[in-house]
Amino acid sequence: MLSHIKIVLVETTHPGNIGAVARAMKNMAMSRLVLVAPKTFPSNEATARASGADDILAAATVCATLQEAIADCQLIIGTSARRRTISWPELNPKQCAQKAIADPHQQIAIIFGRENSGLKNHELDLCHYLLHIPCNDHYSSLNIAAAVQVVCYELFAASAPQESATVGDQGECPLATASQMESFYQHLHEALVDIGFMQPGKSKSIMRRLRRVYNRIQLDTKEVDILRGILRMSQNHQHKD
Amino acid sequence: MLSHIKIVLVETTHPGNIGAVARAMKNMAMSRLVLVAPKTFPSNEATARASGADDILAAATVCATLQEAIADCQLIIGTSARRRTISWPELNPKQCAQKAIADPHQQIAIIFGRENSGLKNHELDLCHYLLHIPCNDHYSSLNIAAAVQVVCYELFAASAPQESATVGDQGECPLATASQMESFYQHLHEALVDIGFMQPGKSKSIMRRLRRVYNRIQLDTKEVDILRGILRMSQNHQHKD
Repeated sequence: MLSHIKIVLVETTHPGNIGAVARAMKNMAMSRLVLVAPKTFPSNEATARASGADDILAAATVCATLQEAIADCQLIIGTSARRRTISWPELNPKQCAQKAIADPHQQIAIIFGRENSGLKNHELDLCHYLLHIPCNDHYSSLNIAAAVQVVCYELFAASAPQESATVGDQGECPLATASQMESFYQHLHEALVDIGFMQPGKSKSIMRRLRRVYNRIQLDTKEVDILRGILRMSQNHQHKD
Repeated sequence: MLSHIKIVLVETTHPGNIGAVARAMKNMAMSRLVLVAPKTFPSNEATARASGADDILAAATVCATLQEAIADCQLIIGTSARRRTISWPELNPKQCAQKAIADPHQQIAIIFGRENSGLKNHELDLCHYLLHIPCNDHYSSLNIAAAVQVVCYELFAASAPQESATVGDQGECPLATASQMESFYQHLHEALVDIGFMQPGKSKSIMRRLRRVYNRIQLDTKEVDILRGILRMSQNHQHKD
């Protein structure tokens, strides 16, 4: 699904970072890694840090120049921590992801520069867009694998729309209906009277507070059964005293 | 701004990961790190990987138990790669960030488990929400620092709303107005006639295509000046022949 996008690393110095990039990519279902003049590759350190993503390393392409790496690409995006003097069209990771997944027939390169110095100006000139990860202005240099992780996270999220948040139980049991909850509140009230916590017909504000508590947590039917089991036991316990 | 949120690491094994987490946090303007029973801390490896974020390591709190680490917290969020049998309210990183920044008076803990086995069920039971980073189902275990990076990236983005994408130059020069662009197109047309590329009044479809090109790139006033300078020179060049 994301196979039209390649991650290009330029002159990476630490082989551990190459391995960590491969892991970050595979976590987010990306597979195409291109290395431009890496200092050391392949290496055991890269394989160790890839931690099971060594298939990405094995399939990686090594190029002598950035031009060669991006020759077949139609959309070139280069990451940049600094703001340049001549500003360039700039994207954040989410906007980058939206552009990158818009047309799967386009060949796309997302380029990450050297660990210490990033991409040079003449390399940024090859890019249609610069990608900037918003961050702390006073400490803005992300580890290269961390930067790849953020960018690939947004690519994955854009390609596989996320399910909405689930509050309460999902799947195994349906949430309790209003009438099931009313029966529960009635039972709760009876039990609280039975155990001597409340007097019948009084303490309406306490019942209201308890309702607020249990409504907020959106009980499912199984949970209601459990709570009512507890109520029954506390009622029986009182009767025996 | 994010000082009400602490990142809690439980029984981290590799000191390098602790350093990488500190760096990921500082990149995103987070500062409160709590370590529950780390295998090795402090350590040179952590400091090396922190790469300038050693202030975060120096200020980190070490606790013996998770309970101690979260004792003062009001909202507890635990990361989890697996779906549990009894499902728990679940958030993705963006939803987590929205909840976490909603009330800066709330003390919040976001917990990350062991590198190999994550958080145990009795630890997840302490959490109000589980945080799940959407990823490749077939390779779902992110490096712990990579996971912290993604979560802190969303926290930073939620706390500092991002500028919109800038297409074209920003800052130094304003974008060209429609009337400036019309003067440019008129000049372009004249120049193309002057150099013999077009005949006056003909080739309307070529002019339309050229308009589409230059409109798409949203020229700024400086860029228009440069292009018109080029047009002038090409006109003069013809006259000399």
